[in-house]
Amino acid sequence: MTEKRHNDPERAAIRRRQVLDAAATCFRRSGFHGASMSQISKAAGMSAGHIYNYFDSKDAIIAAFVEDNVARVMEIIRKIESQPDPLQAILDDVEQSVPENLDPDHWALPLEISAESARNPVIAALSHDADRRTRARFLAVLKVGRAMHGLSADDATVEGRMEAVISLYQGLHLRGVCNPHIPVAALAESFRIALRALLFT
Amino acid sequence: MTEKRHNDPERAAIRRRQVLDAAATCFRRSGFHGASMSQISKAAGMSAGHIYNYFDSKDAIIAAFVEDNVARVMEIIRKIESQPDPLQAILDDVEQSVPENLDPDHWALPLEISAESARNPVIAALSHDADRRTRARFLAVLKVGRAMHGLSADDATVEGRMEAVISLYQGLHLRGVCNPHIPVAALAESFRIALRALLFT
Repeated sequence: MTEKRHNDPERAAIRRRQVLDAAATCFRRSGFHGASMSQISKAAGMSAGHIYNYFDSKDAIIAAFVEDNVARVMEIIRKIESQPDPLQAILDDVEQSVPENLDPDHWALPLEISAESARNPVIAALSHDADRRTRARFLAVLKVGRAMHGLSADDATVEGRMEAVISLYQGLHLRGVCNPHIPVAALAESFRIALRALLFT
Repeated sequence: MTEKRHNDPERAAIRRRQVLDAAATCFRRSGFHGASMSQISKAAGMSAGHIYNYFDSKDAIIAAFVEDNVARVMEIIRKIESQPDPLQAILDDVEQSVPENLDPDHWALPLEISAESARNPVIAALSHDADRRTRARFLAVLKVGRAMHGLSADDATVEGRMEAVISLYQGLHLRGVCNPHIPVAALAESFRIALRALLFT
């Protein structure tokens, strides 16, 4: 499960993105198991042989999606880190972060990958590693933030708080799929209440 | 997508359960799209024709799983309802409910169904209806509980709090898959903090 290298990196990057967009569409329509490499190559407008120049398996494509998601989460954490008060920044972002995390268009593919992780050890290893890296960075931010406010910042306490914060947000990925009538403003207000208790006590 | 009726209801119920257990195993192994009706009938030890006496499609099997899950959630709500203080009962249950909701063996199939809901309108309609019914009952319990404590119990407030509580718990289904090293005791303590804020303020 390797990603191939090419002589013209710019052109390769464009083709690679083309495959990923096509794969996202196919996975969205047919699920990870229902979408074949030949369907993906067709949707990408490439020959079945050509696609293997970029990804040698569906697992390699999923690995690329997992990395895309790591980059997205790291960017969110980086923004929080850059604020003078990172804990307050998380609270202040609720109006935007709650609807974003509810959007099924955004989270259908990560949900598919999580479902796949529960059965495929290769994908599970990728998911675990991605989660470990983003957790490590988020934990560091929370520890700095809590220390700034004179709150307990030992590993056990902060890890527990962090897992509850992540549960709240990842739970929204499922709520967006299960309930099309979420009262978003009332939910954002409840998030503020829960986050304030988890972050500031 | 209908479930067939039979003359001997007891025998039919046993056979039906046999099909569902086999389907759960196949879905777990190959995903909803990867598992065929003929694989499921094989795993159930039935002829491919015989299985159609019980379920006429994979969607009908998923519908049965969705109903199983509704029954499970309704039983949890019924237990909370039967306590003198339902809000306190939710808090007191955290030691048990947090590890239960983290268990991937328990939640891989519901995750698979949620991923499928994001693309299959038939399954989405089932999921939405199931969620609507369990939400209605949970909302009623929370309103009674909050009124008992003299807290605001209008629909908007309680719906927002309820969605945050459900996000916390459903988020655990994803955390259990993404992080095999959850600090369970610290997370349960954090759940108590978040739930106390959401339920009792």
